[in-house]
Amino acid sequence: MVSSVPPRPPAGPVRIELLTLGDELLLGLTTNRHLGFIGAELGRRGASLQRNITVEDNHDAIVRQLSDSWANSDVVITTGGLGPTCDDRTREAAAELLGRKLVFEPSIERAIHDRFALYGRKPTPNNLKQAYVVEGAEVLRNPNGTAPGLWLEQAGRILCLLPGPTNEMQPMFLEQVLPRLVSRGLIREEAAYLQLRTAGIGESALETLLQPVFDRVGPGLQVAFCAHEGLVDVRLGSPGGDLDAISVENVAAECVRLMGEDFVCRGHDSLPKVCADLLRAADRSLAVAEAATGGLLANAFSGVCGACKCLAGGVVCPTNAAAVQLLNVPECLLAQHGSASAENAVAMATGVSELLGADYALAVTGFSGPSGSPGENPIGSIYIALASPEGVWSRKLSYPGPRCTVRHRAVNAALDWLRRELIRARTTRPVPGAALRVLQ
Amino acid sequence: MVSSVPPRPPAGPVRIELLTLGDELLLGLTTNRHLGFIGAELGRRGASLQRNITVEDNHDAIVRQLSDSWANSDVVITTGGLGPTCDDRTREAAAELLGRKLVFEPSIERAIHDRFALYGRKPTPNNLKQAYVVEGAEVLRNPNGTAPGLWLEQAGRILCLLPGPTNEMQPMFLEQVLPRLVSRGLIREEAAYLQLRTAGIGESALETLLQPVFDRVGPGLQVAFCAHEGLVDVRLGSPGGDLDAISVENVAAECVRLMGEDFVCRGHDSLPKVCADLLRAADRSLAVAEAATGGLLANAFSGVCGACKCLAGGVVCPTNAAAVQLLNVPECLLAQHGSASAENAVAMATGVSELLGADYALAVTGFSGPSGSPGENPIGSIYIALASPEGVWSRKLSYPGPRCTVRHRAVNAALDWLRRELIRARTTRPVPGAALRVLQ
Repeated sequence: MVSSVPPRPPAGPVRIELLTLGDELLLGLTTNRHLGFIGAELGRRGASLQRNITVEDNHDAIVRQLSDSWANSDVVITTGGLGPTCDDRTREAAAELLGRKLVFEPSIERAIHDRFALYGRKPTPNNLKQAYVVEGAEVLRNPNGTAPGLWLEQAGRILCLLPGPTNEMQPMFLEQVLPRLVSRGLIREEAAYLQLRTAGIGESALETLLQPVFDRVGPGLQVAFCAHEGLVDVRLGSPGGDLDAISVENVAAECVRLMGEDFVCRGHDSLPKVCADLLRAADRSLAVAEAATGGLLANAFSGVCGACKCLAGGVVCPTNAAAVQLLNVPECLLAQHGSASAENAVAMATGVSELLGADYALAVTGFSGPSGSPGENPIGSIYIALASPEGVWSRKLSYPGPRCTVRHRAVNAALDWLRRELIRARTTRPVPGAALRVLQ
Repeated sequence: MVSSVPPRPPAGPVRIELLTLGDELLLGLTTNRHLGFIGAELGRRGASLQRNITVEDNHDAIVRQLSDSWANSDVVITTGGLGPTCDDRTREAAAELLGRKLVFEPSIERAIHDRFALYGRKPTPNNLKQAYVVEGAEVLRNPNGTAPGLWLEQAGRILCLLPGPTNEMQPMFLEQVLPRLVSRGLIREEAAYLQLRTAGIGESALETLLQPVFDRVGPGLQVAFCAHEGLVDVRLGSPGGDLDAISVENVAAECVRLMGEDFVCRGHDSLPKVCADLLRAADRSLAVAEAATGGLLANAFSGVCGACKCLAGGVVCPTNAAAVQLLNVPECLLAQHGSASAENAVAMATGVSELLGADYALAVTGFSGPSGSPGENPIGSIYIALASPEGVWSRKLSYPGPRCTVRHRAVNAALDWLRRELIRARTTRPVPGAALRVLQ
């Protein structure tokens, strides 16, 4: 029987465990993305997972792990093992754990028939296994698949079973699980922290810049830094409740002022997304030319939904011949300065912007590895150029590390440069007929 | 004290557990890549993880989990928590578990000093914390970082502590952990299975094709299928030892014959890698033109180390204007047939191959989402074209699913087409002056 009284929020932090089921995870055939997604969503609301366990698709192993997690936590969430095949065993294990029966739920059977009918098919008998639910469970509907989720409460604890496919689990978690956890008082409704994203400034330099603010506010403020591929995020919160939301907001506003142009956005938007939004708002277009990054920049940009509307086009030129053919880079320029040069970066950026009539253009050339050039341009030497309505500039960068890291850092550096230029253009008046400037 | 006798291999399958330590995993700040890597490497040698647990960076939680895993397995592997800062607690927890002391190891101190000297720096005092080892542990040297790994044997069980950074953990696992597990008789030295990779054939069609072979060989053969983004892998093994390596090899050879052109490679090579190898062997070059995939194809290809040597170049044209400007696609063709058409795909492929003088060219256009066109070309309608020395062809594809899936499937389909063409070209004589063929 489901308790009609919501469980009392426990005195200490809520203890939440996540069981990710599926042999394919243990065999390294798929990556465990559920941990990252659920961990981040809970973290945003001031809760954290105390443990994540991946166990074999084996009835005894699942029951043993479920019992252990159930005994040590307030909320147990499982993913996977709710499907129609014989290795889907979560439903049975949960029934055994709680000492309940599996009962047939006709409304789920109808939903399964309806979903198959959409594709002009009929469900096979094993599909109807998914219409059995643990007695007394609330059914979490699954608009993206056949296996519904189940929500169970017993002895002041919660057991929540979710399907394994990402496109089914994620919306179910956001739309049906989070609101239930909020209504039980187990997690906060509003965000537990405020995130400020920066680019172009190191973690320790940022900390030094902001420390006087944090010192003045005092220990009631919780601060965390997180660096990734040229970006540094700062999270501000007050988990103890010493500061109210307005006070944290005021601290954030002061941090943003100090960050100046290094401030990218609040929240989690990527650099391509931020650039695409700025381009769209200004009704401007971008073209890209890539030698060292081989399509990564174009792909990062066009991966953002709707960003292709402001992407005029892109050119990938791994060889000098391609730069000459596709971008009209003069052969004599390449002969004199080489491909890994400020001159080539500038010629690529102006070439692609003229060809496509784009307002802005980014170019990336240099050595991302595995080979470099002895002397001035070792592996990791990258030249980027930015062409704008006001002129064209180039800049040399040096990144240590493997090819993949160099390429990602170069793309982020190029996008961050564009972002700063778009922000400046928003606040300054355009200079009619500004001379072409080449800075190195 | 370390037992001088290697532990006896247990009678059943070896029970191995992996503890991945680090709050950043539970908070969703980083993805758990260690599970995938270690799971796959063990799987190749006939062993599998029975459990993976991620716990908080908290001394009591780590000790509790270590005790539980130690009581239920033959081998416990940990990653993370060996660094110099105060939240690195694995060494202390392991000492407590085994009832041993931490002792100072001067050779590690020297290695730390040497590593810092390389970068012209001196270690801070907390770095020397890493020179403490659990008494009796074998030290696993770390050429890529300061924290060494530790290998401990006690009561016929193994505890292996590895550092958290991927570039430190992975080589240590391959070069120092796997050979030790082999020498203790816990995993196989040679591969436990043989993997055949296919493209262009569905999982069930492949099973139907190969089933007669498997039936004839009998139950001593273990077969597993794994489908991902248009590829299907078949794994063949004989874990019970009923078939020797030569017999499994003979089965594999027969499967390869039946697969025909759908066979891609043995092992784990990606389609871009296989295509790059074929192009290099034939001394041929490739150009790409992308409307629907926005740089993903160029990026997939240039991400393969050395592949840029055979990539003549690439063009990303999200708009008709870009196709006209960059690839000389006739405006009247676009007006008559539209961008999502076989005609445009063919014009893009011939345009880019002529511009760059490439032997082969791939073009991708159509609707990857979020918007499509009513009627003939809904979302997921993709046209690809292949230009080769013998002619140019186009093909229409339809993929359901989100934009990201459509784009990946389209790229794999294009690369697979190129692969087949390169294999055919290897076995047939070139047709001089072959007419341009356009098939839809």
